[in-house]
Amino acid sequence: MSWRYEIRLAGSGGQGLILAGVILAEAAGIYDGRFVCQTQSYGPAARGGASQAEVVISDAAIDYPKAIRPDVLLALNQNSLDEYLGDLKADGLLVVDAGLVREIPDHHQVMAIGFTQMARDLGKAMAANIVALGALAVLTGAVTLPSLEAAVLARVPKGTEELNRKALEAGAAAARQLLLRAPAAELPQVEDADLA
Amino acid sequence: MSWRYEIRLAGSGGQGLILAGVILAEAAGIYDGRFVCQTQSYGPAARGGASQAEVVISDAAIDYPKAIRPDVLLALNQNSLDEYLGDLKADGLLVVDAGLVREIPDHHQVMAIGFTQMARDLGKAMAANIVALGALAVLTGAVTLPSLEAAVLARVPKGTEELNRKALEAGAAAARQLLLRAPAAELPQVEDADLA
Repeated sequence: MSWRYEIRLAGSGGQGLILAGVILAEAAGIYDGRFVCQTQSYGPAARGGASQAEVVISDAAIDYPKAIRPDVLLALNQNSLDEYLGDLKADGLLVVDAGLVREIPDHHQVMAIGFTQMARDLGKAMAANIVALGALAVLTGAVTLPSLEAAVLARVPKGTEELNRKALEAGAAAARQLLLRAPAAELPQVEDADLA
Repeated sequence: MSWRYEIRLAGSGGQGLILAGVILAEAAGIYDGRFVCQTQSYGPAARGGASQAEVVISDAAIDYPKAIRPDVLLALNQNSLDEYLGDLKADGLLVVDAGLVREIPDHHQVMAIGFTQMARDLGKAMAANIVALGALAVLTGAVTLPSLEAAVLARVPKGTEELNRKALEAGAAAARQLLLRAPAAELPQVEDADLA
């Protein structure tokens, strides 16, 4: 039985989620050596400035490349949360931007982190996508932080490496803080055994 | 009967084809208003530094998001040409980098353009991906040049807009030159009627 893990990253057009999807896919696929498929879809529905990327990670060749029932939804604004929550697995993890999502739904597992505010504190609100990736690595275990760092550094513009490294680490640290408060049994973390 | 057009962009890891795929998808999906799915896959096979992106463009919602039998293969090096030629439709268009692909196969329709050399002449060999996009717009008609320009300018690093605009136009100009020499009937261009 092969292991398959689906992550959807959603927000508005300027929040860098397509790049985040590419980085996450390269971290898991090229650096962690898993099978990965990364998809963006555009169409009439996407013309309102919404943006979403999907990453499917597996320990075996991937038959269907799109997310079917995501294990994780990262929502960086209210609209994308409202639009995509219905697809999330019932026991899936919802991760939202604490500053940009106001109405958190009554979902089983929700974690809110101030990605955008944290990125702003580092000097660049645009790095919220990288902060979020750092948090996702810790919260899901589906990608390793060293691989994520390598993928980030290979993709971000020259001269922003240090900022992005800090953004990644800040997101990971915030997620670790949250985990210390969350009962471990509730986390949909990938088991090491599944990843072997 | 809906219209579906599949483009595969392939080369080595540093040639910017993932970014080219994202730009092409955004041009067709967000700016031209078509249904688009854009995919990258990574896995053990992709660890040798190969890189490929697929863009599926349609006038209707896309059921299967990956390229099945590409209508166009852009190959920026010999390895990716050798690896992916077998998938290309028999009457599909093969577009290669004239400087980096040495052995051009006996395929029905092949166009070779010096993308990398042209980008180098503009001052940045890394812009070969954008030169190639300009050529693909003219050769396939699957995306419009103004949409491509808008998508390029939204994605490339600040300060490189003018270079990338020139790269796009250079690719389009080179393709137009080639078309003047090619019998029109042989081109797998999308008909206006199909796009209506």
